[in-house]
Amino acid sequence: MKPRPEHGAEPTADLKDWIVALFAEMREEAFDGVGVSRETYGAGETAAIEKVSAAARAEGLEVATDPAANVVITLPGLDRTAPAVACGSHLDSVPHGGNYDGAAGVVSGLMALVRARREGIVPPRDVKLFILRGEESAWFGRAYVGSSALFGAFDPADLDLKHRSTGRPLRDYMAEAGADVERIAAREAFIKASDLACFYELHIEQGPVMIARKVPVGLVTGIRGNIRHPKGICRGQAAHAGAVPRWLRHDAVFALSDFIMRLDQHWVILMEQGEDLVVTFGIVGTDPSEHAMSRVPGEVGFSLEYRSQSAEMLSFFDGILREEMANVGRSRGVSFDLGPALPTAPAKTDPKLVNHLASICKDAAIPYERLPSGAGHDAAVFANAGVPTAMIFVRNEHGSHNPHEAMELEDFFQGAEALYRAMLGAPEALS
Amino acid sequence: MKPRPEHGAEPTADLKDWIVALFAEMREEAFDGVGVSRETYGAGETAAIEKVSAAARAEGLEVATDPAANVVITLPGLDRTAPAVACGSHLDSVPHGGNYDGAAGVVSGLMALVRARREGIVPPRDVKLFILRGEESAWFGRAYVGSSALFGAFDPADLDLKHRSTGRPLRDYMAEAGADVERIAAREAFIKASDLACFYELHIEQGPVMIARKVPVGLVTGIRGNIRHPKGICRGQAAHAGAVPRWLRHDAVFALSDFIMRLDQHWVILMEQGEDLVVTFGIVGTDPSEHAMSRVPGEVGFSLEYRSQSAEMLSFFDGILREEMANVGRSRGVSFDLGPALPTAPAKTDPKLVNHLASICKDAAIPYERLPSGAGHDAAVFANAGVPTAMIFVRNEHGSHNPHEAMELEDFFQGAEALYRAMLGAPEALS
Repeated sequence: MKPRPEHGAEPTADLKDWIVALFAEMREEAFDGVGVSRETYGAGETAAIEKVSAAARAEGLEVATDPAANVVITLPGLDRTAPAVACGSHLDSVPHGGNYDGAAGVVSGLMALVRARREGIVPPRDVKLFILRGEESAWFGRAYVGSSALFGAFDPADLDLKHRSTGRPLRDYMAEAGADVERIAAREAFIKASDLACFYELHIEQGPVMIARKVPVGLVTGIRGNIRHPKGICRGQAAHAGAVPRWLRHDAVFALSDFIMRLDQHWVILMEQGEDLVVTFGIVGTDPSEHAMSRVPGEVGFSLEYRSQSAEMLSFFDGILREEMANVGRSRGVSFDLGPALPTAPAKTDPKLVNHLASICKDAAIPYERLPSGAGHDAAVFANAGVPTAMIFVRNEHGSHNPHEAMELEDFFQGAEALYRAMLGAPEALS
Repeated sequence: MKPRPEHGAEPTADLKDWIVALFAEMREEAFDGVGVSRETYGAGETAAIEKVSAAARAEGLEVATDPAANVVITLPGLDRTAPAVACGSHLDSVPHGGNYDGAAGVVSGLMALVRARREGIVPPRDVKLFILRGEESAWFGRAYVGSSALFGAFDPADLDLKHRSTGRPLRDYMAEAGADVERIAAREAFIKASDLACFYELHIEQGPVMIARKVPVGLVTGIRGNIRHPKGICRGQAAHAGAVPRWLRHDAVFALSDFIMRLDQHWVILMEQGEDLVVTFGIVGTDPSEHAMSRVPGEVGFSLEYRSQSAEMLSFFDGILREEMANVGRSRGVSFDLGPALPTAPAKTDPKLVNHLASICKDAAIPYERLPSGAGHDAAVFANAGVPTAMIFVRNEHGSHNPHEAMELEDFFQGAEALYRAMLGAPEALS
């Protein structure tokens, strides 16, 4: 057994080249002609997980699959019963997404474990990488499937959510990927919070803040929660577009536009008051089997999502939007139905872990800033389950959830270095 | 040859029963589970045309097909070279439409010709029924295909318009229905305005005005023209829904909503100024292959149609909407592209014919009112080609272009009586 490396030691050039090649191969295998598509609990996600698992096995790491079909890769420690040091992220992507959203976290974790393994390091306790299934909501309208199931916190009703294009339920895809759907439905937990000493997630920043501030690494202070309504609908009355005067119309599209503009006005005012909020209607559409250019639209569907670091703000905005739906309904003769709500609670990161990461960055001369996470992450599920949690952001241009996401590998290696040192370099954060 | 019937003669009960059965069979054959679907230049339209043609042949009427695949049914007159008295309408429908939009005009024309034929009447000149193809824009984004082609007024570029669901071009459907696409593309006219003494179109009212005013028959004073943009698009920038603050967003859905609400404000003001205008965004949608609940929408497609009896108002509103697109583009960092414009000019009906219809209604004790047509009609194409034209509206509840349209047959027979007398009862209108 070799001594633990000094702070400031570097990963070998071989290891870096291996990581660069791994990213390139993952991109190539998931390229869909526009961007990267790795379907939740589908072929693309499974292929990427198998690729990383095979690499880990070849390096002599332990590879196990849990009943939610998450994969856990372990570098065994001296005391195998002590709470483990853990990291993790996801390998699924949105349709036409980028290569690094999720994968950067998994690959940085693999890099840390392989680096220690190649250097012959045996850590004081197990160090684990969780490859978490189904983080993206784009495919089934539900995020954090694998991490929620891990803690027995997955709502069984969501097993019936339909795939965006095939219409088949999530439960079928999960079963085909090897998950034990019955145990998940029974809300069985496959891990306890006390099994883990801490959880780190490295992730590309999905907003433009770090580009604007010119820092490669971000330390996350808190994670926005959200409320999502995937299946909202505004119902008016279809009519001939030429023959019905404005005052007799019940136009669903004008009504939805009115609703959106009213929320926009509230949003502006809440920003001016210093509140934390983002609002998105990501999906909007009249029914292709009924709509026509010359027909007053009788119905329009929409998704509505709003996020805040504050649970109180989420609840306040829920009240505002219900009031405005009623107002628009009265003035335009339509009705709104938000459909089911999928809430995700905001999450706090652990100040001790964040401070430890900050001191690591200082030691390693890695420029960093503290910032909130606008996006939700699997890390929030771990934090809300009671695991001390921290996140490392890596600077990334053009945002995420689109094919133009652009993380510099140089920035990635700085973030990965901080992760490696946090998990394998300095045990004091766990004291 | 029998003498011409006295004003006030009634169609036989047999004839009325035959018409009622014809409507019922047409409805049954085109029922799609929700409403009536007779696809433009497709199977449903063709089947209905063949049904009416077969009935006409069985009654001894002449049936001919023109190079646009329109069908012309003729009751021969004494002087076969004199300009003919004509009527007509269409047999296609919107998807999930009603049974009477278009068909009421064709069936009332058939009823007039059959009634005269059964009574042995030989009119002074030919009396013709035009069954005009492709009146509804719902299938290819272009209305009045058959009537425009009849007068050599069909833009050849529109032959490439794509079918709403199959994506195949209009030209293929036209060719399969027996049209001579090359001659249409060469803008050959298959009829001259001077071949027709007059043109009548009976049509259900597509708005709620006659229900509100409690009159069974309407005489149309003018027909709204329109400008249609089937393929509008608003382009912003896709981004992660949680991680991009409001001020850095280029959200296509918020921008389109802003645009729609600005036009709504102008519309209200123009109404208050007594202008004639209706505005409709019948089709709105983010791209199903790209959109996601958790992604700021980078793009949203829309159709825009606006109508007025005044060509000046159409031009004025075109200016307003271009200005507002620029305003929204500047304030929200998006761009708008309206795509191609499909204009249809407003049309005037012939005052002499309308007055003649009014005196017929008085003679026959049919309650009527004069009103404008909010919807466009094939009759407008005849009027703009130079044929003296008039329209008879029949009261109809719940509007049209939806499966709930409801015309009372009693009202229909009153409108059909006016049409019969105009074409076969009293020649003075043609003097």
